[in-house]
Amino acid sequence: MVVASAEARIRELGLIIPTAPTPFGAYVEAVRVGSLLFLSGMLPVVVHVPLYTGLVGKDISVADGYDAARTACLSGLAAARSHLGSLDRIRSIAKLGVYIACPSDFHEHPKVADGASELLRDVFGAARLPPRIVLGVSSIPLGMPVEIELVCEIES
Amino acid sequence: MVVASAEARIRELGLIIPTAPTPFGAYVEAVRVGSLLFLSGMLPVVVHVPLYTGLVGKDISVADGYDAARTACLSGLAAARSHLGSLDRIRSIAKLGVYIACPSDFHEHPKVADGASELLRDVFGAARLPPRIVLGVSSIPLGMPVEIELVCEIES
Amino acid sequence: MVVASAEARIRELGLIIPTAPTPFGAYVEAVRVGSLLFLSGMLPVVVHVPLYTGLVGKDISVADGYDAARTACLSGLAAARSHLGSLDRIRSIAKLGVYIACPSDFHEHPKVADGASELLRDVFGAARLPPRIVLGVSSIPLGMPVEIELVCEIES
Repeated sequence: MVVASAEARIRELGLIIPTAPTPFGAYVEAVRVGSLLFLSGMLPVVVHVPLYTGLVGKDISVADGYDAARTACLSGLAAARSHLGSLDRIRSIAKLGVYIACPSDFHEHPKVADGASELLRDVFGAARLPPRIVLGVSSIPLGMPVEIELVCEIES
Repeated sequence: MVVASAEARIRELGLIIPTAPTPFGAYVEAVRVGSLLFLSGMLPVVVHVPLYTGLVGKDISVADGYDAARTACLSGLAAARSHLGSLDRIRSIAKLGVYIACPSDFHEHPKVADGASELLRDVFGAARLPPRIVLGVSSIPLGMPVEIELVCEIES
Repeated sequence: MVVASAEARIRELGLIIPTAPTPFGAYVEAVRVGSLLFLSGMLPVVVHVPLYTGLVGKDISVADGYDAARTACLSGLAAARSHLGSLDRIRSIAKLGVYIACPSDFHEHPKVADGASELLRDVFGAARLPPRIVLGVSSIPLGMPVEIELVCEIES
């Protein structure tokens, strides 16, 4: 199978991959074990400043939640690129976790999670969509509305 | 070690594995990386219709939560079988995550989680019990009470 | 790279690794798949008795949450040592998940999570810090305030 280059797609789409995030505590952003790259939870921050805070469906809208998920996922791509040198070394995404801070009566998780999923589809192509775990949680570090977990398969 | 066939156990127990689930958004139900099969979060749905909604311990009972966990886990087996052709290709379960939508004063998570654990024990045998992560969350997509995460080890 | 011995560090630090935990239900504490060791969710218990209960930031302080995270992580090291024979067989930590039961307006997750991260840094060294997922959840089994998830890379 010929897989389109993620880096070429990023250029075509005019996507800006931000500066790679740096830790808020005693951890690192990425560790590779064999063909798997495990990333830390990614947040919608720009240089440690939260882009959004609050609960989705209460303090911020579903549309803002979508953008927060997309922004956090872009941070994940930045962390992966920083570790690997190029996103073209990613063969597939083994896990996308989307954790949404929201009230217990919130139901529109899939619309928020698609902010991350659609970014990954645009970058890696529809043939490489990942499996997805989506949960509503009570809170996320620093009061942010969305956190993204990524586990990537790396070429050997 | 001789491992009893999961498919044979399913026939003996008269278990009905449902139709494999289909995604609610831009993701897939399963991705294999080497010997690991990562599945999407599994919900207690039948053909996209939630079998249960609400919080366990508030809107539905622990017994219903147990059944929701079992039903979601059956969907996971359906997704795995659909991807692999046969559940006999599963060597072990590397991770069982059980996420329960419930109030903050709920304490009976293990009784709910056993709905998934006991199904896996019945299908794969007591010698292949998985490790388990159990959390109470604020909400789950579409207002459902339980979500199941499975990572399976596949025969090489 | 010469990696300092985790067991030697534990002796130097005078750390007491407790008795390995035993399950609260139909699961096991650890399963190895290839070079990955997956552990069950670890709780701040001593012989099945919770050391802390309640929500961090409401019922217990951030300092107690830090200690709960450290205690649960010590249980994880106990489970890993019990499975492997020696913690020196751990090459790296592929995932540290820290799940904190807390209200929706709690923001100090990193300070709690550092209870686990700083223990791992002390035992495995600053060169082997893991990536970290931190979430605020609505509740944890038996009303405990913190649960720890560990995935370890094992020497081949």
